[in-house]
Amino acid sequence: MCAIVGIYGNENAARLASLALFSMQHRGQEATGISSSCNGKIYTKKDRGLVSEVFTDEALSYLKGNMAIGHNRYSTAGGDSILDAQPVFAKYKLGEISIVHNGNLINKNEVRKDLIDNGAIFQTGMDTENLIHLIAKNTKDRLRDRIKEALTKTIGAYCFIVQSRSKQFVIRDRYGIRPLSLGKIKSGGYIVASETCAFDLVDAEFIRDVNPGEMLIFSEKTDEIESIQLFEPEFRPCAFEYVYFARPDSVIDGKNVYQTRQNMGRTLARNDAKKDFKADIVIPVPDSGVPAALGYASESKIPFELGIIRNHYVGRTFIEPTQEMRNIKVKMKLSPMKSLIEGKSLLVIDDSIVRGTTSKRIVKMLKDAGAKEVHFRVASPEIKFPCYYGIDTPTQEELISHRMTKDEICEYIQADSLEYLSIEDLKNSIGSDRNYALESFDGDYFVTK
Amino acid sequence: MCAIVGIYGNENAARLASLALFSMQHRGQEATGISSSCNGKIYTKKDRGLVSEVFTDEALSYLKGNMAIGHNRYSTAGGDSILDAQPVFAKYKLGEISIVHNGNLINKNEVRKDLIDNGAIFQTGMDTENLIHLIAKNTKDRLRDRIKEALTKTIGAYCFIVQSRSKQFVIRDRYGIRPLSLGKIKSGGYIVASETCAFDLVDAEFIRDVNPGEMLIFSEKTDEIESIQLFEPEFRPCAFEYVYFARPDSVIDGKNVYQTRQNMGRTLARNDAKKDFKADIVIPVPDSGVPAALGYASESKIPFELGIIRNHYVGRTFIEPTQEMRNIKVKMKLSPMKSLIEGKSLLVIDDSIVRGTTSKRIVKMLKDAGAKEVHFRVASPEIKFPCYYGIDTPTQEELISHRMTKDEICEYIQADSLEYLSIEDLKNSIGSDRNYALESFDGDYFVTK
Amino acid sequence: MCAIVGIYGNENAARLASLALFSMQHRGQEATGISSSCNGKIYTKKDRGLVSEVFTDEALSYLKGNMAIGHNRYSTAGGDSILDAQPVFAKYKLGEISIVHNGNLINKNEVRKDLIDNGAIFQTGMDTENLIHLIAKNTKDRLRDRIKEALTKTIGAYCFIVQSRSKQFVIRDRYGIRPLSLGKIKSGGYIVASETCAFDLVDAEFIRDVNPGEMLIFSEKTDEIESIQLFEPEFRPCAFEYVYFARPDSVIDGKNVYQTRQNMGRTLARNDAKKDFKADIVIPVPDSGVPAALGYASESKIPFELGIIRNHYVGRTFIEPTQEMRNIKVKMKLSPMKSLIEGKSLLVIDDSIVRGTTSKRIVKMLKDAGAKEVHFRVASPEIKFPCYYGIDTPTQEELISHRMTKDEICEYIQADSLEYLSIEDLKNSIGSDRNYALESFDGDYFVTK
Amino acid sequence: MCAIVGIYGNENAARLASLALFSMQHRGQEATGISSSCNGKIYTKKDRGLVSEVFTDEALSYLKGNMAIGHNRYSTAGGDSILDAQPVFAKYKLGEISIVHNGNLINKNEVRKDLIDNGAIFQTGMDTENLIHLIAKNTKDRLRDRIKEALTKTIGAYCFIVQSRSKQFVIRDRYGIRPLSLGKIKSGGYIVASETCAFDLVDAEFIRDVNPGEMLIFSEKTDEIESIQLFEPEFRPCAFEYVYFARPDSVIDGKNVYQTRQNMGRTLARNDAKKDFKADIVIPVPDSGVPAALGYASESKIPFELGIIRNHYVGRTFIEPTQEMRNIKVKMKLSPMKSLIEGKSLLVIDDSIVRGTTSKRIVKMLKDAGAKEVHFRVASPEIKFPCYYGIDTPTQEELISHRMTKDEICEYIQADSLEYLSIEDLKNSIGSDRNYALESFDGDYFVTK
Repeated sequence: MCAIVGIYGNENAARLASLALFSMQHRGQEATGISSSCNGKIYTKKDRGLVSEVFTDEALSYLKGNMAIGHNRYSTAGGDSILDAQPVFAKYKLGEISIVHNGNLINKNEVRKDLIDNGAIFQTGMDTENLIHLIAKNTKDRLRDRIKEALTKTIGAYCFIVQSRSKQFVIRDRYGIRPLSLGKIKSGGYIVASETCAFDLVDAEFIRDVNPGEMLIFSEKTDEIESIQLFEPEFRPCAFEYVYFARPDSVIDGKNVYQTRQNMGRTLARNDAKKDFKADIVIPVPDSGVPAALGYASESKIPFELGIIRNHYVGRTFIEPTQEMRNIKVKMKLSPMKSLIEGKSLLVIDDSIVRGTTSKRIVKMLKDAGAKEVHFRVASPEIKFPCYYGIDTPTQEELISHRMTKDEICEYIQADSLEYLSIEDLKNSIGSDRNYALESFDGDYFVTK
Repeated sequence: MCAIVGIYGNENAARLASLALFSMQHRGQEATGISSSCNGKIYTKKDRGLVSEVFTDEALSYLKGNMAIGHNRYSTAGGDSILDAQPVFAKYKLGEISIVHNGNLINKNEVRKDLIDNGAIFQTGMDTENLIHLIAKNTKDRLRDRIKEALTKTIGAYCFIVQSRSKQFVIRDRYGIRPLSLGKIKSGGYIVASETCAFDLVDAEFIRDVNPGEMLIFSEKTDEIESIQLFEPEFRPCAFEYVYFARPDSVIDGKNVYQTRQNMGRTLARNDAKKDFKADIVIPVPDSGVPAALGYASESKIPFELGIIRNHYVGRTFIEPTQEMRNIKVKMKLSPMKSLIEGKSLLVIDDSIVRGTTSKRIVKMLKDAGAKEVHFRVASPEIKFPCYYGIDTPTQEELISHRMTKDEICEYIQADSLEYLSIEDLKNSIGSDRNYALESFDGDYFVTK
Repeated sequence: MCAIVGIYGNENAARLASLALFSMQHRGQEATGISSSCNGKIYTKKDRGLVSEVFTDEALSYLKGNMAIGHNRYSTAGGDSILDAQPVFAKYKLGEISIVHNGNLINKNEVRKDLIDNGAIFQTGMDTENLIHLIAKNTKDRLRDRIKEALTKTIGAYCFIVQSRSKQFVIRDRYGIRPLSLGKIKSGGYIVASETCAFDLVDAEFIRDVNPGEMLIFSEKTDEIESIQLFEPEFRPCAFEYVYFARPDSVIDGKNVYQTRQNMGRTLARNDAKKDFKADIVIPVPDSGVPAALGYASESKIPFELGIIRNHYVGRTFIEPTQEMRNIKVKMKLSPMKSLIEGKSLLVIDDSIVRGTTSKRIVKMLKDAGAKEVHFRVASPEIKFPCYYGIDTPTQEELISHRMTKDEICEYIQADSLEYLSIEDLKNSIGSDRNYALESFDGDYFVTK
Repeated sequence: MCAIVGIYGNENAARLASLALFSMQHRGQEATGISSSCNGKIYTKKDRGLVSEVFTDEALSYLKGNMAIGHNRYSTAGGDSILDAQPVFAKYKLGEISIVHNGNLINKNEVRKDLIDNGAIFQTGMDTENLIHLIAKNTKDRLRDRIKEALTKTIGAYCFIVQSRSKQFVIRDRYGIRPLSLGKIKSGGYIVASETCAFDLVDAEFIRDVNPGEMLIFSEKTDEIESIQLFEPEFRPCAFEYVYFARPDSVIDGKNVYQTRQNMGRTLARNDAKKDFKADIVIPVPDSGVPAALGYASESKIPFELGIIRNHYVGRTFIEPTQEMRNIKVKMKLSPMKSLIEGKSLLVIDDSIVRGTTSKRIVKMLKDAGAKEVHFRVASPEIKFPCYYGIDTPTQEELISHRMTKDEICEYIQADSLEYLSIEDLKNSIGSDRNYALESFDGDYFVTK
């Protein structure tokens, strides 16, 4: 996941960047950071924690300048995660740069090995360091040419924003796998952000999406943004953004996320209608299952009900339940609405099933609350393959759909029936007018250049 | 608001109390506390903060014993709120006691004056201190008789749990204004809690509500709970619990909260139908407006949509927006779903209007997002009177419905139409089988003994 | 221990109180608090932690008014120490009061029982609550008369400052056991504080000590301080203030603390000289043993050396050493200066020996560092009795001098010789012109009224 | 300043490293860090704060393995100091390494420019990154050879410890400017630390100092430490370690720090004696002036007195005094002992004068406290030049001795007389048997290779 943002040409650049990151907090809660540029110097502040915790007034007043880039980090394994926070800053031959990155480089290890064999050092595990090295090794005179050449050696699903002392370079990979949109800030200047939901708080108007393979260059003449098509586009946006990642009020590459999720629910309903299947009520697994459940209800005319309440006070530090209180973790987050559920046949909609353990606990919780039947519907196809394009999925072994058939999973989670969307259904729900990155579902790891 | 809980006869008493308080966090986030009793000694831990922050494993291991009472505090004005946290502990003639309290004593100041005139001292502003004084002044030999007599001098809307070294006394006022329910914990012992939503996490079964005017006594013979009817019941449960306070999955005095909210929405829809009014979509102000909006949609057949997204990452310490970023506060919490809203006539449902400022901002936000019309519906009557029965409402002057007519409010918030429930509608939505406390709506301050 | 301060008639009252408490931090580090009065209202802020942590600018700006009282708390047993922090605030018949207290009430339990039998409640374990109850129960019209009468029922070693909405009442017990001094603040108004070392930071000039049995009254006519002699003085100041508690730059009841400690060292030296005993170097146990060691060195002409270095970075939260690293705790605080010590006969001076365990560890540490001989000298007599007058001493059983003779202690701590001051020596060192409270040494618990 | 430590061959390596860093906290309080190695993987934990705050049990349990290196950081300018904390970790061609460093590289910028011109990137401002790059660029097969060659390009005053997956390489520059000592840990393995005061807590015995220009190599055969003389030694230890930096109980290159400071005081006394000057009492500026003052007192037979008390409770966050409370900062830290000072002629000893502002405030404070005369003595020569060998000194312009003569400084600080040690005096006080690094005093920047 992760979120990136760039603000260019606004005197409140760092403050606007922090508001944009705040709007994209759902894409990463572990760490956050911003680099601003002012008078030829780059200022960076990054730390563990939420945007609202890290970016105090004091921190923002340190981040001087009318341009800024920022990042929310999803998670890292290991002990000292602050070292893996972004932006990554470095001095190199042409001066200072700072980079934020969202995505995953496929040939990271090969490039890294090659760089290391030639004497480079790597201080973190981040892909971003690769790009900085490739830029620094290069001998071109202009940063834009160095970036361009660096990217010819970089295979992956990525969005980068590179900030120098006076410019910003925004790059989206040729497949456009990760989303990236451009907006105009009413109080001046431009914003580039992973999701359009970031535009609202900074009071910006959507201009267009960054094109696959495009590099935008912001420089002091802010009234014209330079655009260079670095690579021939082969558009394959990530279907998972629509299924799960993006905030429902974002528009990703022209498709309204909320609407696509409703379509997924409608399709599930139509599939059930073909089999004449009908439950008593439709209930979402909150919050991400809500739009699909609304779509299902609307299509099927089965009443939509909030049968599960989500508790938003779950903190990070609460007591670990004792042995006899097992299974309590899911109940601390989700509570069944007994009176609605009792004696009913439920159509429960979640966005996806990964390991299966949460789904199993939800079914048990609903049955304990008196549900007569629990019919589980998943607003995505079966996840059979790990994603290597920027999503932190488990190993293939951990994916329940890799190990079990649909029927076996239905038995494992103790549901009365289980249905997924087909891959075709998913494509049609988002929009049949284009090709999607679907590697988690079909194993087509198409990123090769 | 506030929440109280008592656990009796379970070796994990404090831990279960903390889980129950966690489930009732929505009733108060400022401070929390628990007192346990063990071997004739009462242990207390209370502090500012959320339940999940205060009750670490260390804190819980300090709270020894198989009985515990707990409290979540809604808010206090002033500097040193920790002193006003509950439980309140005291030594008095018969030993040690600790008390938690939810509600408001009407004759608090008179009783306090009387006590003070007779030499008592008050160290806090809490009603709870009144009760302890009345118990301590008394000359009866048994605590139950002291409590009983103390309550004859106490007029108000209240639920108390009094814990001595070995017993718990649970009291609900004769009107039953604030809710209080009794459950049986599967792993042993009993729970009494403000809302039934607390029963789930501690794995308890609902037995019954505590009756208006009833005192329950838990003592070491835990298999029988003693019940004493202290006062003749005159049942008038608070309508606001159904409108706003309670978690939707709670059942308050036999009425399912979610269901009553849906009824409120249905009634609003029926009222609109009489006038042949029809909007394009129904959208709730999240989270509390959701059930009423579902009811409205179901009754009116107008599609329900999540037109406003709520951001749950809003922290307490985030940056204050600068002047030019005014109006941003409501947008940090609520985001409009532009694609759904644009060009549409919206039927927006909120649970209540207090000062009117938030409603005004919501209407503006929706119109800025492209709404053609915004029709505001309120799932409660006009709030014209302050509540003195345990809810922290503003002064009468601040209540917009005290100062303005419905039409004036509609103009003030810039809505295209505005409708409330009538008081009769509200009663019927909750259930016409009983009388409710409705003082915020009708000014009938009926509590007189 | 504990420290108290009162500031009257200065617009920065709370700020000056915080500076005074900061200067007296050595008397108590567990909790601190200040109450100010402004326009008939008392404001209180108290919390766990150091003065510099609790009294932020925000806290001080809440504490409005031109009078303030404050307190540093030494320590409390148990879980929720914040409840036992001072000042103690209460409303009673004549209005609001807030009280700070340093000392110990001898007949506390009797008074408490009597009050409780008459219907009083006690919410804390603090003596201060006793006094408030006695004041509140009283029927006199004026606070001064109530305080006076309350104190006739109070036996103990105490200093109180009682603050009403517009006055301050300062009381020192008839024996003058705990110190209390009056100063004039250059920027306006007066200060009363446990130690004169508090006068420096607030830029105040010492006027005089509060007399034993005296009550000072500060009211709006600040140019005259009223003085009432409540009780006939029987002056017996606490010898332990000179031995250990007070900061060396304080002057307690006319005696310079540093000077008295030097005298104690000189006396030890003269006693050794009578026996023709001579060590190679004199080294103090830092920091409290330094003045006595300087006195010893000056008298004996044996060189004074800093043979033990004290580490001031010891925090509260550092790792607990594992089993094999035992004895490390004293070494984390105190480090021997090997090069000075090796092969030498050391005369080590500490202020007192309580349980003997620290002394034993210090001797071992010095011998491990190569000392040829360690002669231990104690700048006070043997502590054979617990103190009940305001000092947190262990039970009599834990006092090594209760269980062992001097020779046995010498063997226990593995010293080559051990000498104490005699009680007569101690008196003469402080000044033979008056009687001292010496109950820890002679068991004379003289406080009886 | 800064402190470094290496532990090799002890199963509690990280814990012992933390204890050693705790003992050397005086050399740096801003940040601290430790890297351990275990089974071919390097674990790092570093953060802002004191050793006792950062190295919780949880942190230490993460730092697995039987070797560890650690660092205390003195201070950094700017916003995000955590990025400049050590150890610095990197992956390079031969695997993983982690480095700690104490000192300053003279040709850092030239080397950096050269590396950058050849495509290197620098992510921090730390010298340590230079060394890693030089090691990584190298083409030698063995790490020892790479380090060796890297150091031939490195001019400066430094101590490095380089930790690979299974070895530690300890290097001290050819001049031995910064101290570094080797000890044997009784529970197993070896310690290398900046100061011998670190040996005590880890229970280690001093073996010898690391030689100027020497590289020690610890590998799995821990019973033999390999020693390679990398460079011909030209021994010039830093005089400032004796004057100010080192803890008095450390032995730096065979010279006892406490003893050398006493010698400095003795010399000041002998110089005064030549002029027949005699004050009434000698008082140190605590804590660092104490040993010199003891030396002065011993030589001059003038009584030594603790005329200034140091307050150790000064926190980082305390209130900023208002305008009218100016000059309070030095008084919060240092309190004059009025009774000792009044009417006396004082001989005040401090270790050095840098900007002169503190000295001026101390003189004023003493005169305000009643001193008749204040004669200021400085236990070091005049500081006329900035230090480039690892000490954070101000710019030359800020050095008062650069701008003023001794007489002008005397007038500026309002002292009655002022004397320094001559450079010759200083050398003799430490030991005339060797050459010292004295660049702050004589401007001889001798480090050229």
